[in-house]
Amino acid sequence: MIQVDQALSIIAQNSAKMPVKKIKVGKALGYVLAETIYSPIDMPPFRQSAMDGYAFVHTDLNTLSVVSSSQAGDYQNIKLSKDQAVRIFTGAYVPDDADTVVMQEHTTATGNAVVIDKFPAPFANIRKQGEQIQKGQLVLEKNTIITAAAIGFFACLGITLIKVYSKPKVAILVTGNELVRPGKKLAKGKIFESNSVMLQAALKEVGIKKPTIFRVKDSLKATTKIIESCLTQFDILLISGGISVGDYDFVKEALLQNGVEELFYKINQKPGKPLFFGKKDKQLVFALPGNPASSLTCFYVYALPALKKRLGFTDIHLPKMNRKITSAFHNNTAKTLFLKGFYNDETVTVLESQSSAMLNTFAVANCFIYIPHTVENVAQQQEIQIIPFS
Amino acid sequence: MIQVDQALSIIAQNSAKMPVKKIKVGKALGYVLAETIYSPIDMPPFRQSAMDGYAFVHTDLNTLSVVSSSQAGDYQNIKLSKDQAVRIFTGAYVPDDADTVVMQEHTTATGNAVVIDKFPAPFANIRKQGEQIQKGQLVLEKNTIITAAAIGFFACLGITLIKVYSKPKVAILVTGNELVRPGKKLAKGKIFESNSVMLQAALKEVGIKKPTIFRVKDSLKATTKIIESCLTQFDILLISGGISVGDYDFVKEALLQNGVEELFYKINQKPGKPLFFGKKDKQLVFALPGNPASSLTCFYVYALPALKKRLGFTDIHLPKMNRKITSAFHNNTAKTLFLKGFYNDETVTVLESQSSAMLNTFAVANCFIYIPHTVENVAQQQEIQIIPFS
Repeated sequence: MIQVDQALSIIAQNSAKMPVKKIKVGKALGYVLAETIYSPIDMPPFRQSAMDGYAFVHTDLNTLSVVSSSQAGDYQNIKLSKDQAVRIFTGAYVPDDADTVVMQEHTTATGNAVVIDKFPAPFANIRKQGEQIQKGQLVLEKNTIITAAAIGFFACLGITLIKVYSKPKVAILVTGNELVRPGKKLAKGKIFESNSVMLQAALKEVGIKKPTIFRVKDSLKATTKIIESCLTQFDILLISGGISVGDYDFVKEALLQNGVEELFYKINQKPGKPLFFGKKDKQLVFALPGNPASSLTCFYVYALPALKKRLGFTDIHLPKMNRKITSAFHNNTAKTLFLKGFYNDETVTVLESQSSAMLNTFAVANCFIYIPHTVENVAQQQEIQIIPFS
Repeated sequence: MIQVDQALSIIAQNSAKMPVKKIKVGKALGYVLAETIYSPIDMPPFRQSAMDGYAFVHTDLNTLSVVSSSQAGDYQNIKLSKDQAVRIFTGAYVPDDADTVVMQEHTTATGNAVVIDKFPAPFANIRKQGEQIQKGQLVLEKNTIITAAAIGFFACLGITLIKVYSKPKVAILVTGNELVRPGKKLAKGKIFESNSVMLQAALKEVGIKKPTIFRVKDSLKATTKIIESCLTQFDILLISGGISVGDYDFVKEALLQNGVEELFYKINQKPGKPLFFGKKDKQLVFALPGNPASSLTCFYVYALPALKKRLGFTDIHLPKMNRKITSAFHNNTAKTLFLKGFYNDETVTVLESQSSAMLNTFAVANCFIYIPHTVENVAQQQEIQIIPFS
């Protein structure tokens, strides 16, 4: 049995980044960049007008004849003499001969001429080519998480394909003779199986969309066989149930028979003590407790960091914040507790039911309250650490 | 021109919840529950053993003959006399005749008999039927956001279909003659169009997966026509560009010609001043500025709350937190500023480039820094409000 921090550190050490692949920028949300990107173009790619107004050669003539008009998207490289101007709009190409744009509010248009009422400084109101970024300059560094803003940034530079760490293929293996799928008739002695759909949703929250779900009865032979098959096809295997020490808990033995290296088994925590983490080559296996609330707690605290590491994230662990607890709390377990809580701007409250079997509290909580195994008493209003659900 | 708070309040008042629909529990992540759900079953549905051990009728006999064995999922309602026991495992059906389970660690098995070394209290180690939730009891209230935990909770009670607020159908309409799609050749005077793919990604972050993207040239007739068509098919229309007051900005006129009621136009803020918000029946229209950084800022600050309100969320606005600013800041604009910043546990730093055209800073920022229009000077280390990107 190990402590929570040791378990997290073992997970970080043993989770390798996924292979790199190229994807379309439009599909890249939530991936991590696996290359440093430099700009293929100057931006803006040409001298742009920053205003609606008139482009001209800076001069002291205050009446100019308007020889053409240029809106954004046009390319009319009009030759201009000193007494001429081009009507121009924001974003439009500034003719090579012009060096200044006067904003329309500082002019008076009269027929084919324009009178400049207030002269701008020379070179005013023109965005220089490459003013925002030049060809060859850094766009985004390797290991940047790709957000909507990053996608927009790539697109405006004409970048359409980027290298990212691919997403792991995940399998969920559900064990337990007692389990019946929701929607079917519940025979005596059976309960509804909820972990597969719950873990599937939790995976979706980090962008893993279609895990493959397998189910197996409580049999060593069948469990060994299906694990063997999963290990050849998936990068991460999440197993639900069968990991305690009962006569019908075959998961650990089946994993070891398949050559999965045990990296830890059992953590000094509540809920979720009987968690197994192992690997075979780069494939990772989490055998999660069967109780739904324990299973989901272990998923968030342990499997999620492994997933994020594989996806290329640098910060992989759940973020913590401090809040004042609304009532005193006694931890007589000498275990680290992950309690379901509800926090606001200043305080956090321990929710009433903390059953590891039921998800009723989990479904309305907005954080875990983290009580280290070394802490026995927490006083009312004491600052403690919470892990917000995002 | 209105202030930021007024704009947010107008959006909240004018965004109606979407119609209710039934969906499968497994698909419900991120939706908001549109009905209060009560449990259709007792959970556990029968008396379950909480331990691996022996079920028996509480007695003072300490040697019992073991007449059967019951693992989780079995249903063997064995008749038991006072001197008999059933070998039983965690989660298994406790025979109706038994009232107590002794854990196996407190027994010695000898052939077909078991000796109880340490007697449990009567009724120990049995989870009562309905102990966690009873048929008819509250599961989750209307307006609860559906998380992975909620999905697991529904599933374990056998609930397969629930009523939620449907997701709005969203269209993105991109305007601008100067725009070329990334991947195509960039002719002189043109720039790459990035807002559609950026807004598409931002929508995906809130679970709106497939917005329909339309593009239109700068023409009043074409713009009016495409807006007319969008208003009949979509619940929310996001328009990019064409909303300033230039000769080629036709969006506002086209909206008014289509009977869209103007709810506000222009906000006293930077970036993103020329934002238009309107509605026609329940359809909402946001005409976002064309500059990518302004566009994305307006999306997060204004369009996202409207989307969340339509989706049934109760808390719709971006959450704020306090941090100490690392350097003094002067706001000489009398506008509310949404600056790109980077925060850690204690402080926040204003990032260097705040251009409304470029996304370089946005792509590496992790928050907006919110400087109200009434604030002119912020001292170094002063606490200010930030809006973290989740």
